[in-house]
Amino acid sequence: MLKVYLSGEIHTDWREQITTGAEGLDVEFFSPVTDHDASDDCGVAILGDEPNKYWHDHKGAMINAIRTRKGIADADVVVVRFGEKYRQWNAAFDAGYAAALGKSLIVLQQPDHDHALKEVDAAALAVAREPSQVVEILRYVLTGTLPS
Amino acid sequence: MLKVYLSGEIHTDWREQITTGAEGLDVEFFSPVTDHDASDDCGVAILGDEPNKYWHDHKGAMINAIRTRKGIADADVVVVRFGEKYRQWNAAFDAGYAAALGKSLIVLQQPDHDHALKEVDAAALAVAREPSQVVEILRYVLTGTLPS
Amino acid sequence: MLKVYLSGEIHTDWREQITTGAEGLDVEFFSPVTDHDASDDCGVAILGDEPNKYWHDHKGAMINAIRTRKGIADADVVVVRFGEKYRQWNAAFDAGYAAALGKSLIVLQQPDHDHALKEVDAAALAVAREPSQVVEILRYVLTGTLPS
Amino acid sequence: MLKVYLSGEIHTDWREQITTGAEGLDVEFFSPVTDHDASDDCGVAILGDEPNKYWHDHKGAMINAIRTRKGIADADVVVVRFGEKYRQWNAAFDAGYAAALGKSLIVLQQPDHDHALKEVDAAALAVAREPSQVVEILRYVLTGTLPS
Amino acid sequence: MLKVYLSGEIHTDWREQITTGAEGLDVEFFSPVTDHDASDDCGVAILGDEPNKYWHDHKGAMINAIRTRKGIADADVVVVRFGEKYRQWNAAFDAGYAAALGKSLIVLQQPDHDHALKEVDAAALAVAREPSQVVEILRYVLTGTLPS
Amino acid sequence: MLKVYLSGEIHTDWREQITTGAEGLDVEFFSPVTDHDASDDCGVAILGDEPNKYWHDHKGAMINAIRTRKGIADADVVVVRFGEKYRQWNAAFDAGYAAALGKSLIVLQQPDHDHALKEVDAAALAVAREPSQVVEILRYVLTGTLPS
Amino acid sequence: MLKVYLSGEIHTDWREQITTGAEGLDVEFFSPVTDHDASDDCGVAILGDEPNKYWHDHKGAMINAIRTRKGIADADVVVVRFGEKYRQWNAAFDAGYAAALGKSLIVLQQPDHDHALKEVDAAALAVAREPSQVVEILRYVLTGTLPS
Amino acid sequence: MLKVYLSGEIHTDWREQITTGAEGLDVEFFSPVTDHDASDDCGVAILGDEPNKYWHDHKGAMINAIRTRKGIADADVVVVRFGEKYRQWNAAFDAGYAAALGKSLIVLQQPDHDHALKEVDAAALAVAREPSQVVEILRYVLTGTLPS
Repeated sequence: MLKVYLSGEIHTDWREQITTGAEGLDVEFFSPVTDHDASDDCGVAILGDEPNKYWHDHKGAMINAIRTRKGIADADVVVVRFGEKYRQWNAAFDAGYAAALGKSLIVLQQPDHDHALKEVDAAALAVAREPSQVVEILRYVLTGTLPS
Repeated sequence: MLKVYLSGEIHTDWREQITTGAEGLDVEFFSPVTDHDASDDCGVAILGDEPNKYWHDHKGAMINAIRTRKGIADADVVVVRFGEKYRQWNAAFDAGYAAALGKSLIVLQQPDHDHALKEVDAAALAVAREPSQVVEILRYVLTGTLPS
Repeated sequence: MLKVYLSGEIHTDWREQITTGAEGLDVEFFSPVTDHDASDDCGVAILGDEPNKYWHDHKGAMINAIRTRKGIADADVVVVRFGEKYRQWNAAFDAGYAAALGKSLIVLQQPDHDHALKEVDAAALAVAREPSQVVEILRYVLTGTLPS
Repeated sequence: MLKVYLSGEIHTDWREQITTGAEGLDVEFFSPVTDHDASDDCGVAILGDEPNKYWHDHKGAMINAIRTRKGIADADVVVVRFGEKYRQWNAAFDAGYAAALGKSLIVLQQPDHDHALKEVDAAALAVAREPSQVVEILRYVLTGTLPS
Repeated sequence: MLKVYLSGEIHTDWREQITTGAEGLDVEFFSPVTDHDASDDCGVAILGDEPNKYWHDHKGAMINAIRTRKGIADADVVVVRFGEKYRQWNAAFDAGYAAALGKSLIVLQQPDHDHALKEVDAAALAVAREPSQVVEILRYVLTGTLPS
Repeated sequence: MLKVYLSGEIHTDWREQITTGAEGLDVEFFSPVTDHDASDDCGVAILGDEPNKYWHDHKGAMINAIRTRKGIADADVVVVRFGEKYRQWNAAFDAGYAAALGKSLIVLQQPDHDHALKEVDAAALAVAREPSQVVEILRYVLTGTLPS
Repeated sequence: MLKVYLSGEIHTDWREQITTGAEGLDVEFFSPVTDHDASDDCGVAILGDEPNKYWHDHKGAMINAIRTRKGIADADVVVVRFGEKYRQWNAAFDAGYAAALGKSLIVLQQPDHDHALKEVDAAALAVAREPSQVVEILRYVLTGTLPS
Repeated sequence: MLKVYLSGEIHTDWREQITTGAEGLDVEFFSPVTDHDASDDCGVAILGDEPNKYWHDHKGAMINAIRTRKGIADADVVVVRFGEKYRQWNAAFDAGYAAALGKSLIVLQQPDHDHALKEVDAAALAVAREPSQVVEILRYVLTGTLPS
């Protein structure tokens, strides 16, 4: 069984494409909380308000780290998706974290980001353009079967 | 003696401000190659041309990784600077890599990036706004002296 | 599934509040032996009397360490509770032990101890005031759901 | 050469007694910042004021952690002193941190704390009552010479 | 239960001999993809063509590494088979990788390779000549039973 | 669940006393091969005769190491029994191996060996005299119940 | 300062080309014993003859492993040279060993071996064809200077 | 430079034979305290008398462990000498401790102990009969020179 953590962009349905595409494979998927508002506000919602936005964010980011760290630590493969928008520094942070732990890293990104992502890609075992390619990699790794 | 790796932005003189400011302290600084062209082209310049830009970048990023990995692995403290421009995914990657290795992380960034960097900041022991603050942290850590 | 070790104070029902509150969540809880007399006397009760109180205590603390070390080593999350009374150095010791192993640390304590616990809190991903907040963190980490 | 980190109580001269007593031995000593005010205020003094006392303390504790973590990580031996006053949770935290890293731990404390410290003592290779005993241990470990 | 990774030669039926012979034992076997063409072409088949044969091979080898690394990392025992033909550097690479991770290594090779493989054999706990001997080792390790 | 490796003496029924006594507890026991002849001869029986007794022994000891290493690596607790006879260096070797991996160590030995075993005992969390005491420790560690 | 281990082929002067070319750089080089006869016979020359060639080789390979393991463990960069002749399984073994330890790996080989070495190359940060290219990589990594 | 820890028997001059024989080689030697009385009594001499002989021994063994653990942890090579007399369980314990840390192990013992030491020898890279052979191994490992 392969444990796969899906890190990065939360505004498109790439996670659903992968988990649906991988149905029938012996894979267990993990993800961060992808509800944007919940992810931003979890710290103050649970532990109390902060008037200062910095600490508001900080309390939330720390709680999200409980989930993220476990997800990456338990994973065999970490897929990091860089979308078209936003700075996505947390995605690159997760990629670095996974690389330092020796996890197999798959980066999912479009060619126009190739140059900006070259250091991240250099730590990856595969750079995919489409979620379906990630599914094909997982299928091949688990079953030895290539796309027909 | 404290070993400090200075990661991130290469278009302003923040490294010089820190190394100059820290003169007299028992610190050894390490950095990536900050010559932008050399950093981009080192792979093909040494190992031969690649017609495909992706592999051109890849060969360079891999060689740069020899220096970066050693710099972070040897460091006690990793300072990661996020500048005003560019996506700087390599900076965030280095921050994640350093965090996973248990290095003391200092982030140097402006407040307008606070929200986008909240996951990175949550892994840091200090978030500084100015290079001089990094110098003050190093001075305090080494000598116990605060700015007057 | 999340493995959670509940360290610290043994004179109030905070563990029951958390385990009851977390019913239905995919959590497995571990704790030290919370029977105070058994915990104090286990060494001599099993391995034979010691006339010297120091060695009496020592033999017991060593056997308790078998359980504590496994509990922390296996855990994803370590919750450390500091109560109103006693010195509770074992709680702080467990927090340091957990931090060095890279476990996600949640501290549960009242505000009047904030200053005395600042070094411990600095290693934590959350500082909670009430057991119910610990439950809410676990629920959010596992399901992404915030308290309504 | 032996690297020794001296953790804990900062209100008596126990560190000076040890470092003076160990003169001539091949030992290098490290300590936290023992200026109480500087240690409390370093965060805001360098990185800017915080109206909330909790975050004031937090910023300081995080910067102090840069020094503490390096001191313990580099040490062969960690001496942890528990004094007569205060809760000293940071001392117990350092002891747990050192134990988890497999450092040789020496605890320095008076007999009236024996019961409260039994879990900490159980992780130690020596429990000393006087700074001079710590010096004798270091001398014996380095030279094989016992006190005459 | 013993997890066993079967690395190396893919042109004879030695894996089948071992897995068939070990039926009834509490062993789980893992292997690389042994379909030679799929293994060579998986990179370009999934991620797109490369005109340069070097990068064609490289993309495939990287994807195969996802499976190989997990197989070795999860294994208790790594069996490395050197056949009569080909250079089989990947087999020796796997043996070195397994040795550095402290895995129990069994080498399966014919005597005419003894001198060339002496450094690899020196890291092994057994050097077998026939697949049936590997089965006997596994049976003995799991049940204490020797061949009659 | 607690995984316990029972190392050492193979000429008395101490393992049976412990496994029988621990019935009903959530413990899984592992042991070396305790058939003395099989343990001595496994190397040559499987891999072929050696005219030199040293290599005869060596081949067997290496195969036994596959089982021993896995048993210790997987264990939470390692119990090492020193009997009345023989030199039992393999028992002391296993104790050192377990200690270096941070396993909880229980030594089972009679008082007349106390002085000779003092370095081994110093690495243990308990020194028991009777198998029944080992059972009581396991019961207490798992259930918090002391012998009545 | 960069520590570099030069593994592999011993029949050409590639090591001299690299060490001479790197004069003036802050590099320390380590190598295996490259005297072929000494390397083959060291075991029996020191520890006594073995009539069986297998054990003759084995005793030597084990002593050579003392040097090899230290060389790789201490290195920042491991260069592995595959020459035109021989099977060179020890070179591939060293590459795997270095990769598992997270060392920066540089492979030095001719294009006709590209396909056979693809798994080894996939673990490398650079694949060089000439010793002078290895020198240029070391110069760039240490000084940021590219060949003119 | 090679760091070598000399563990085991303290009643003959084997350590002097090795250190004298290795003069001129780039080796640094470490040893336990070899003054038998000091080693037995260090605990009570420094930390105070114990009426119970077990705790008398225990306090001493724990202090000696500070030196032993550092010696082994820092070493590249651990030489363990088994003499003709005594049970020497601490020597076998050190061998197991060193093996688990991946140190290169050399055992120094006479053939009449071969069978009793077969598990220890199976973890060693060399089994020597005379101190001069240990010197020759160190000379060869450092200089590539064999005895003439």
